[in-house]
Amino acid sequence: MSLYVMKFGGSSVGDTERMKRVARRIVEKQDEGHQCVVVVSAMGDTTDDLIDQAKLLNDNPPAREMDMLMTTGEQISISLLSMAIHGLGHKAMSFTGWQAGFRTEAVHGKARITDIMPERVHKALDDGHIVIVAGFQGMSEEGEITTLGRGGSDTTAVALAAAIQADVCEIYTDVDGIYSTDPRVVQCARKLKEISYDEMLELANLGAAVLHPRAVEYAKHNQVKLVVRSSFNHNEGTVVKEETSMEQGVVVSGIAFDKNVARISILGVADTPGVLAQVFGELAKEAIDVDIIVQSGVQNGEADFSFTVSLSDRERALSVIEQIRGKLPYRDVTSEDHLVKVSIVGAGMVSHPGVAAQMFDVISQQGVSIKMVSTSEIKVSCVIEGSNLEGVVQALHTAYGLDTDQQASVGGPQVRR
Amino acid sequence: MSLYVMKFGGSSVGDTERMKRVARRIVEKQDEGHQCVVVVSAMGDTTDDLIDQAKLLNDNPPAREMDMLMTTGEQISISLLSMAIHGLGHKAMSFTGWQAGFRTEAVHGKARITDIMPERVHKALDDGHIVIVAGFQGMSEEGEITTLGRGGSDTTAVALAAAIQADVCEIYTDVDGIYSTDPRVVQCARKLKEISYDEMLELANLGAAVLHPRAVEYAKHNQVKLVVRSSFNHNEGTVVKEETSMEQGVVVSGIAFDKNVARISILGVADTPGVLAQVFGELAKEAIDVDIIVQSGVQNGEADFSFTVSLSDRERALSVIEQIRGKLPYRDVTSEDHLVKVSIVGAGMVSHPGVAAQMFDVISQQGVSIKMVSTSEIKVSCVIEGSNLEGVVQALHTAYGLDTDQQASVGGPQVRR
Repeated sequence: MSLYVMKFGGSSVGDTERMKRVARRIVEKQDEGHQCVVVVSAMGDTTDDLIDQAKLLNDNPPAREMDMLMTTGEQISISLLSMAIHGLGHKAMSFTGWQAGFRTEAVHGKARITDIMPERVHKALDDGHIVIVAGFQGMSEEGEITTLGRGGSDTTAVALAAAIQADVCEIYTDVDGIYSTDPRVVQCARKLKEISYDEMLELANLGAAVLHPRAVEYAKHNQVKLVVRSSFNHNEGTVVKEETSMEQGVVVSGIAFDKNVARISILGVADTPGVLAQVFGELAKEAIDVDIIVQSGVQNGEADFSFTVSLSDRERALSVIEQIRGKLPYRDVTSEDHLVKVSIVGAGMVSHPGVAAQMFDVISQQGVSIKMVSTSEIKVSCVIEGSNLEGVVQALHTAYGLDTDQQASVGGPQVRR
Repeated sequence: MSLYVMKFGGSSVGDTERMKRVARRIVEKQDEGHQCVVVVSAMGDTTDDLIDQAKLLNDNPPAREMDMLMTTGEQISISLLSMAIHGLGHKAMSFTGWQAGFRTEAVHGKARITDIMPERVHKALDDGHIVIVAGFQGMSEEGEITTLGRGGSDTTAVALAAAIQADVCEIYTDVDGIYSTDPRVVQCARKLKEISYDEMLELANLGAAVLHPRAVEYAKHNQVKLVVRSSFNHNEGTVVKEETSMEQGVVVSGIAFDKNVARISILGVADTPGVLAQVFGELAKEAIDVDIIVQSGVQNGEADFSFTVSLSDRERALSVIEQIRGKLPYRDVTSEDHLVKVSIVGAGMVSHPGVAAQMFDVISQQGVSIKMVSTSEIKVSCVIEGSNLEGVVQALHTAYGLDTDQQASVGGPQVRR
């Protein structure tokens, strides 16, 4: 007998038919002799519908009241799913976030979990119930209802799995698992059997819809074994765990890309200590996330540097930079959109020199110029012109031996250059 | 400065426009210098929609999960209403039942309030907030979410008014107040300025839609002054309080009727002690409420008796009686529907003999025969053929001087016979 946490997202429970299918799926698992704790999100469009209603009453509704409103979405899901399971003749008990013992910071809209006291979950399991827990929500010390923000239900599932020492945390979604790249861009993308937490984090942009980075970090920190799999079939999913038993020689596990990129360059800044800290400090104050930062060499006591931000943050970032011109003079500021960031990710990269060089080579063979580069131990990212995205991703996918047919016939990845 | 509890039902907050109007109404009250605690029900059809969804998943959903589901309706209302008030530039804070301190029995679907600990309500009022509380719900000692059952939001409002020692509990609804009888039946029905708790309880069938008997009992017990008024206009409503300063000589305040009546007669029962106790004990076990009971005289050691039940309980009641035939032999059982119960209600009745006789006279002048009679200190009820309802109610309304025109011209009720 194993203890499973099973998380179902909003699309998996989008209507009553899907809800029934999920109920059957859970009951199957219990019938196999396992204990099941289920974390579920709000049904399909419920969250958007609630937001629409709120906007009709207040353009800028208070975060506390939005949490009060939004948490009803999951409360509806858990009660209906519990009823569906009862309808199949099995015992089930639903719990809101606070009932399941989720304590959070006293922050609305994006609270972090501070503690989990899952006594009622254990009690219900001991009594033979399937336990259904509302994702995305908790309660502060003061008894205020809070939400965990984006990716909240994944985080609920992983945190609960850690708290109750579940054997596995299964994330059910509408795709079969984590792919080597986006199958909509590269048709022969292949599903990964296993992936490490770190790789998964780097591949977040591929997996954003199925697994939130925050949940992966939580899983890594607590060594929770994750399985990403489809709620629509019984195919094996992708296992996310600490060290994967990778085939010898696998260097690149996947290729991620991000279309939401803008580059900003500040030219002719005085090269004095603390300049970067000041610029990025101001951006951080405005909650603007900066990704790649590149500083060019210093000439005549002046430096140029460039960085990337989310496309949606570009205007705000430019306005922050305009505001600091008095304190921190610079010659000019430029910006650019229509860019993408393409990344190769692989835990094996660290022991294989030349992987980055190969990437630059493949991209240049596509006649595409690289605008910015950033590397980590398990990742190389290049910012390129957005119109070149598909050709470059496809070429990299082939070059690193990720195409499915090769995989099937050759049996292992090939690093050909 | 007074402390008001204002209760708005589902139709008053049926859509966002109505929600905004309610918000303005509340803000007006605060602007007049008062403190406001608002109790609100689920919006319009929300409750029915949730029930429909539940039924699609389970014909007989567990009561615990129904409570989990249904309570989201009020939680949506309170958060949206709070947002609407914020949108008008006033401070508001919403609380679920458990947050407002409502503790109930550990029963689902019809829990009774055991205690109210309104610390957070007081705190929010002290901080200048308008406080919005979810009606109809509470929490058991074990932390289970419960509902109060029918009339729950009225009860929430009255109980909270008692707990925080509010000056008035206003029940906002879609009618102007309590009428002398149903204005859909008698066009010249008049709105009552005042009515006592006891009269209100007897008139429950007239007021069921606006004020639940359970809430009236609670108000009587705790001496909470109620005002029933319209959320659509600023007309004065009806005040419900202990002793009303009635005009001299008002005998009958209102005329109630109930179409949901079936009569059952058990004929030829042995006249031994304990027979009635046994029959009605068995009915009570099945939660069948019995209203009027009439036992005729004994002949040859056998008695006949008749009683009324709700139409919807008739079949179940007959089956209970069939089951006890072995233990308690009787000659025959008959039943009848298409009946109505008409009642005249008035606190002044006790000191005016002949009121009942007048009622029988009025009814017989309509050529209608009376099938059963029941009296209390402030009420006389007659069961008659349903097809005669309108004529009888109209005639009684006129006979007791309740018609508006008479009231306006004559200035007082007339007991003419």
